[in-house]
Amino acid sequence: MQDQHIASAYDRDLEALQALIIKMGGMVEAAIRDAAEALTNRDTELADKVRKGDKAIDALDDKVNEEAARVIALRAPVSKDLRMILAIIRFAAAMERIGDYAKNLAKRVGTLSELRPVDGTDATLRRMARDVEIMLRDLIDAFIRRDAALAADVIARDADIDQTYNSLFREFLTHMMEDPRNITPCMHLHFIAKNTERMGDLVTNMAEQVIYLATGQRPEEDRVKKDQTPYMTAPE
Amino acid sequence: MQDQHIASAYDRDLEALQALIIKMGGMVEAAIRDAAEALTNRDTELADKVRKGDKAIDALDDKVNEEAARVIALRAPVSKDLRMILAIIRFAAAMERIGDYAKNLAKRVGTLSELRPVDGTDATLRRMARDVEIMLRDLIDAFIRRDAALAADVIARDADIDQTYNSLFREFLTHMMEDPRNITPCMHLHFIAKNTERMGDLVTNMAEQVIYLATGQRPEEDRVKKDQTPYMTAPE
Repeated sequence: MQDQHIASAYDRDLEALQALIIKMGGMVEAAIRDAAEALTNRDTELADKVRKGDKAIDALDDKVNEEAARVIALRAPVSKDLRMILAIIRFAAAMERIGDYAKNLAKRVGTLSELRPVDGTDATLRRMARDVEIMLRDLIDAFIRRDAALAADVIARDADIDQTYNSLFREFLTHMMEDPRNITPCMHLHFIAKNTERMGDLVTNMAEQVIYLATGQRPEEDRVKKDQTPYMTAPE
Repeated sequence: MQDQHIASAYDRDLEALQALIIKMGGMVEAAIRDAAEALTNRDTELADKVRKGDKAIDALDDKVNEEAARVIALRAPVSKDLRMILAIIRFAAAMERIGDYAKNLAKRVGTLSELRPVDGTDATLRRMARDVEIMLRDLIDAFIRRDAALAADVIARDADIDQTYNSLFREFLTHMMEDPRNITPCMHLHFIAKNTERMGDLVTNMAEQVIYLATGQRPEEDRVKKDQTPYMTAPE
């Protein structure tokens, strides 16, 4: 009976920890969505909301770390449970960083609202952000259900994000060469594109962890890094 | 007697874990140093060495994670020891990312070697990388000695890195406006500057953890983010 009580309290601890990370995921999804909308509409008020909201995401990261340490110290988890707790700590760190990227995007909205728009790139950035947001939502679902197939699908979608980023990089170079007035806005828009691409990478890392949690196997190392921009130069 | 044996094996486990992270730090320091040297001399051979060497850093990150999980499962550490192990897991993640940034820098050396140099920026980038490398070395020392004062000093130095990055951002904008042939090299050099600035941030995060380990207190939250570029536009 005593044992059962202990087991239940332990289960509740694990569930509470899982609930924290799910909540954090929802907040980060909202941050990406709001930041992208603020960018599209050059809505500085919404951008401000995203910037201020990042504090709550950071606080949740701290809370996950504290709770995880508490559960480890109190319950001495092993094997599967321990793997889950350590994965949750890493998820919190990744989500905190995605939140930072959304905040950084939001910070640039004010500056961009005073600069000329750059043809066509806004819609592409919006779509990229939307895709990453859905990847993150599916990643969280995959984690809840320990669904390795969905996690693998999330990883596969990151290649599209990388491709879009590569095209944008070339587009920005072209716009800047064509008209120097595009240089400053393109520098900021490029930051946003790169940070969005990094969000995709972070979601991919989490998805790899979910596969490990679900199957005990690390995913194949055949994923080639698709950011080709280190090798790119401007079209002649 | 039995207890003493267990305690000693436990201590050896903790020391081995600490030795792993110190080793990883040394490898990452070398990667920063070599990448910066490869950039300065447009030395594609050295750049290649950095790119290939990143696999060993990644492998060490995996090893730290496995060892940490093993020690937690086997020894059920609490309080100070547990905090140290969880900090080491985070250090490994941060160092893995610094290694990635060094690799990314190295990837651009080949492209940059085919582009025109941009006046004055190489020396500044080299100095930034050197400063980050020394920050990392001191951070590791601060961790080994649980030296909160040294860790605080590391954090203070990050403000200089941020300042240098802000100046470089403006310089790149100016060079690009002046001559469109500077656009492509400046885009790549700017990446390198931003990634170096991020390395500094990651070292700073680790230094904050060292202060927490040494004092049990989180450092004051008065550190203002010094990257001012989200608000910057080109000089008129």
